[in-house]
Amino acid sequence: MNAHSEAPGRGVRALTFDVFGTVVDWRSGVIRDARALGQRLGFEADWGRLADAWRGRYQPSMARVRSGERPWTRLDDLHRENLLSVLEEMGLPAPGSGLGDEAFEWLVRCWHRLDPWPDVLPGLARLRRGYVLATLSNANVALLVDMARRSGLPWDAVLGAEVVRHYKPDPEAYLGTAELLGLEPWECMMVAAHESDLLAAKAMGMRTAFVPRPLEHGPGGSAAPPDPDAHDVVAGDFIALASALGC
Amino acid sequence: MNAHSEAPGRGVRALTFDVFGTVVDWRSGVIRDARALGQRLGFEADWGRLADAWRGRYQPSMARVRSGERPWTRLDDLHRENLLSVLEEMGLPAPGSGLGDEAFEWLVRCWHRLDPWPDVLPGLARLRRGYVLATLSNANVALLVDMARRSGLPWDAVLGAEVVRHYKPDPEAYLGTAELLGLEPWECMMVAAHESDLLAAKAMGMRTAFVPRPLEHGPGGSAAPPDPDAHDVVAGDFIALASALGC
Repeated sequence: MNAHSEAPGRGVRALTFDVFGTVVDWRSGVIRDARALGQRLGFEADWGRLADAWRGRYQPSMARVRSGERPWTRLDDLHRENLLSVLEEMGLPAPGSGLGDEAFEWLVRCWHRLDPWPDVLPGLARLRRGYVLATLSNANVALLVDMARRSGLPWDAVLGAEVVRHYKPDPEAYLGTAELLGLEPWECMMVAAHESDLLAAKAMGMRTAFVPRPLEHGPGGSAAPPDPDAHDVVAGDFIALASALGC
Repeated sequence: MNAHSEAPGRGVRALTFDVFGTVVDWRSGVIRDARALGQRLGFEADWGRLADAWRGRYQPSMARVRSGERPWTRLDDLHRENLLSVLEEMGLPAPGSGLGDEAFEWLVRCWHRLDPWPDVLPGLARLRRGYVLATLSNANVALLVDMARRSGLPWDAVLGAEVVRHYKPDPEAYLGTAELLGLEPWECMMVAAHESDLLAAKAMGMRTAFVPRPLEHGPGGSAAPPDPDAHDVVAGDFIALASALGC
C-alpha cells in the first residue's frame, strides 16, 4: 500500500470491477460447460486446453477492435468467432461438422454462466454499504446481466466496454464509465486481478485495488505479484477489500 | 388489451421502464424537498407550483438536445438550468441572491431522492422472477443509481437516454437499449404511464404495457385514458402487471 494506506477509501464513491478473473472463475466455468457438452454428445477433449485456447484469443480479437481494424463488435460475437477457431484447431465437432447450432450457441454463452469466487458475494454485500458497485468489464451488458441474475451479484450499474464502445485498456473505457457514474476519475476505485488493467485505470486518474486471483489460470498457474507501491489497496480477496475500505 | 391478451408476456425477455411518473412520484418528492429547504432557510412559496414549473421545463429543455441545437447534456444539468429559471421566475432565493450553492445543488438533486409508488417494490420483486428489469429513462445513470440504492429498486441494468446519448422519444433511445440488452425490440416490453412514450416504443417494434398513474400531476390531476387496443397490457399498477404477465 502507498501513502493512502491509512484511509485508502477516502474520497472514493464508486468501486468499478473487472469481471473475468477478478469476480468470476472463467476457467473452471468454461471447462465445466464444455465437458458437459462433450459428455452429452459423446466426445472427449482436453477441456482445460480448450478453455485456455479460447481465452488466449480474447486479447488479440479485442485488439483488432481497439485499433479500428474492425468496427465495434460485442464480446459475445468475438467469443463466437474465437470458439469456432478453437474447435477447428483442436479437431473438435463444430457447426457444420457435427455440432448443432443450438449446442454451439449454448457453449458460446457459457461466459454468461460463470460462477463468482467464494469470497465475492459476502465481500460485495459489505462493500455495497459504503460504495456504488459497478462493472467496468470488457463483457457486453447482456452477458453481465445474465451472470449477475444467475449468481446474485449486487451491481448498482452494469457498465463498461460495450456502453462506451471502447475495450479496456482504451482510456475511454475508464473515463466514460466514471462520467456515467457522475464522478471524477479519482472518486472511482478500479478493482482487478490484473496489473495492466489497474495501471491503465491509474493513468486516467482512478484509484486502484489489486486483488490477486492465483487460481485464475488453473491449479498449476500463478498470479504475478503486484508492485506493492503501485496501488491504493492490495487485498487477498473481496472480504479483505471490504475490511481495508472500512465496510 | 389486444390480440396478445391471452399471454401478453409471451416472447418478452426484458421489461424496460419509464421512471419519472411511472416508477416514482416526482411531484410529491420535489415538493417535499423544496418545502424542507424553504423551512430550513425561512421562506415560503407555492411548492406545488414550483414542482410543476420545474417539470414544465423538462420537455422543452430536452427538445433542444434532441434537435441538435445543443450538444448532449445530461438531465442533472438540464434540471439545474431549469431550476435556476424557475426560482428567478417565482422570485425565490437563488444562487447569487440568497440561496447558497450547496443548498441549491441539494435541491437540484432532489430527483435522485424520489420515492416509488407503493406498488412498485412488491411488483418489481415479482416481475424480476420472470424478466430482466431495466430502466429506459431520460434520467442520467447517476440519478437512477442513487434513486435505486435509496429505495431498493432491483434493476438488473440502469440504461436509457444517457447511455445511448439520445433522449426519448428519439428512436435510438429504444433501439439502443434493446441492443445493449442483447435483444430484439419485440423481446422488450416498455412499461410507462405515458401514451407518447409507449407509442414511440411500439413504433420501434417493442411491446407495450400501460400503467396509469392518475396522481402523477397531483391530487387535482388526471391521467389520460389509454387507447385500450394500443397496448399489449393495461394494468392498474405493478402488482397487476405482474399478474397479467404471469409472475
